[in-house]
Amino acid sequence: MNVTILNIGDELLIGQVVNTNASVMSQLLTSAGFRVVRVLTIGDNREDITAAVSDSLASCDITLLTGGLGPTKDDITKTVLCDLFQSELYENAEALANIERIFARRNYPLTPINRQQAWVPRACTMINNSLGTAPAMWFERDGHVLVSLPGVPFEMEHLMVHEIVPRLQRHFHTGAIVTKNILVQGIGESFLSDLIEPWELQLPQHISLAYLPQAGVVKLRLTSVGDNQETLRQEITTQLQGLYALAGKYIVGEDYESLPELAAATLADKNITLATAESCTGGTIASRLTAIAGASQWFKGGVVSYCNEVKHSALGVKEETLESYGAVSEQTAREMAEGVRSRLSADYAIATTGVAGPTGGTDENPVGTVWIAVASSSSTVVFCSHYGSRRQQNIDRAVNEALASLIRIVNNKPLPR
Amino acid sequence: MNVTILNIGDELLIGQVVNTNASVMSQLLTSAGFRVVRVLTIGDNREDITAAVSDSLASCDITLLTGGLGPTKDDITKTVLCDLFQSELYENAEALANIERIFARRNYPLTPINRQQAWVPRACTMINNSLGTAPAMWFERDGHVLVSLPGVPFEMEHLMVHEIVPRLQRHFHTGAIVTKNILVQGIGESFLSDLIEPWELQLPQHISLAYLPQAGVVKLRLTSVGDNQETLRQEITTQLQGLYALAGKYIVGEDYESLPELAAATLADKNITLATAESCTGGTIASRLTAIAGASQWFKGGVVSYCNEVKHSALGVKEETLESYGAVSEQTAREMAEGVRSRLSADYAIATTGVAGPTGGTDENPVGTVWIAVASSSSTVVFCSHYGSRRQQNIDRAVNEALASLIRIVNNKPLPR
Repeated sequence: MNVTILNIGDELLIGQVVNTNASVMSQLLTSAGFRVVRVLTIGDNREDITAAVSDSLASCDITLLTGGLGPTKDDITKTVLCDLFQSELYENAEALANIERIFARRNYPLTPINRQQAWVPRACTMINNSLGTAPAMWFERDGHVLVSLPGVPFEMEHLMVHEIVPRLQRHFHTGAIVTKNILVQGIGESFLSDLIEPWELQLPQHISLAYLPQAGVVKLRLTSVGDNQETLRQEITTQLQGLYALAGKYIVGEDYESLPELAAATLADKNITLATAESCTGGTIASRLTAIAGASQWFKGGVVSYCNEVKHSALGVKEETLESYGAVSEQTAREMAEGVRSRLSADYAIATTGVAGPTGGTDENPVGTVWIAVASSSSTVVFCSHYGSRRQQNIDRAVNEALASLIRIVNNKPLPR
Repeated sequence: MNVTILNIGDELLIGQVVNTNASVMSQLLTSAGFRVVRVLTIGDNREDITAAVSDSLASCDITLLTGGLGPTKDDITKTVLCDLFQSELYENAEALANIERIFARRNYPLTPINRQQAWVPRACTMINNSLGTAPAMWFERDGHVLVSLPGVPFEMEHLMVHEIVPRLQRHFHTGAIVTKNILVQGIGESFLSDLIEPWELQLPQHISLAYLPQAGVVKLRLTSVGDNQETLRQEITTQLQGLYALAGKYIVGEDYESLPELAAATLADKNITLATAESCTGGTIASRLTAIAGASQWFKGGVVSYCNEVKHSALGVKEETLESYGAVSEQTAREMAEGVRSRLSADYAIATTGVAGPTGGTDENPVGTVWIAVASSSSTVVFCSHYGSRRQQNIDRAVNEALASLIRIVNNKPLPR
């Protein structure tokens, strides 16, 4: 089943907004067994919308539209759809009740312009948007399905997950789909690809493998399509044995989208608390971890020790250590991790100290040099990594490598070095 | 001059990668006076690429392609362009020298497959890519310009900024362009729009205004097109007086893309040091500030005091304060800011404490309640804000409001409350 995604909005064409809707929708659709063949972004322009929708109706099985549903005059998707489906607008009672509920909760008066959002074409099935005022609209014609969605990212995603993808799966009888994420760290994408090639080549046709690399981590995503969910799941479990046999030492875990999520789940599951001491990563480990709801259960806190005084005063790194070995050293990383673990009374602690760049490198410690330490009650593991020249990439790689190391140490697995 | 952006790559269609290239390119082109009319993402598929390029050659003035230039068999952009421009590939000596230089620096042997990247169609002008091995290619036909760029984001951006946009401006004689960013905080987008409408309506035709909202901040971007850079700049300075007269109290500053960048420039400029004490923002203020190169000049460090013990032990918040008023209170925010300022010996300090959500709210402190404090040697300003129910949005808004308040206080301007 081929899909065209059509994102409408002038704000997307002037680069004001990054089109995250396209990737969220593509991911959800791909995981559900649909094939996105193109993503088109166009402005709030009647001719362009009409041409793009007509084109997609003729060439694809499914068209998903976002945007252009607001109450202002720029938002013309609805009237274009009326023309295309030779329909007219009517006030949908359920959509109106939803809008009234939302305005009542916010204590705003309902204006005639807001009320207009309850008007939908008669030709469509209205799908209620409980998080916002613009409903989704489902159209069918000659076997083709077109769905118009609001452009607000969290409203779109909620509707896609809970309404649109399940309805599409029922409508097109897509059968069972099982996906599995495996998080791999400590090996580059191309080396991983060479290493697991024999396994990849023997995978049955109905299991596809995608490489999703990001800052030193490769997420492998297996997608399996068939008749029975349970059979597919068992088959993937069996197949994974082959992957582990070849690349087990690089696998950090399964079933999560990112290392912060996997770290959060591991700590929560084992009832372990964590503290962080960050120099070159500047609070980014703490920020990524606390972005996860419920972090206060296992995250005690952290220190961002950007200058040497703070490494000494807030973390207890000895002045002699800083003088003899420098801030970017095994000894400093070790004392940072041990210091924050003891001062914040945490079970485990992570520390980072290095040269993020683009300047500040020396012969001894060029840009991209990062020391990482993980301390527990029994021992402290410290190692050095060498990344590249780009600041944000160096920060992101250090965050991921520190989290992967923490997860391995908590799980009593060796680091892949 | 109308532009089509064509992003090629299967990884974009399965949602593996967010298409940030599209927004970066759109922003650069819009600021340079070009009009992006559509962005199309398609897979590594010969027919789709051929159809999309032909379509764009017929309907636009400029086509910019990214992706499909790697050395693997999936990457077929180059052969499609050969067919379309009835040309053949040859080995370009400058491109080869660049590839050899990059491989020598990395100590990798140059394989025949890598060497293929130096092959370009005779019909194009090769534009060297100093950051990577795939060169850019500039084609012209009947007044239309088509440029093929590598898909790697930092290579693409570097080429766009330094080569492609300037060449397009010369080729199409776009004249002078001046853009100006104004960062506004403390007022919602729609209220701001109502407030400054009289000013917006009197702007001359050649000055356009864009609203770029993000987590409690609205970036206003003025773009002025004309003959003379200096005249345009003076005109914008004059026009800004009208904006300040209406909305001056909400304007935090000019000329930067974001509040972290403006804060960094303000602190560096005034030679002021900063420390942070973050509870609900979990290190995100520190992370955003230290993402900026050179942050060690003015950022001393911070404490992420996620649990109450750390607020007491690492920041010196009194146990009585936590007991009597609670962690989410004016008193705790004040003592956090004052504590971190004095312990880290900084000139200024920011503190945040609140309920990011989605759970943890109480009747007294519902989800979205955040106390923010800014401490200096002379005084501490503390206030409370109420955001919404979404965790990441609450964190982002608190970060922006804290930074806006810091900048205002450093500049001796009142907070807009």
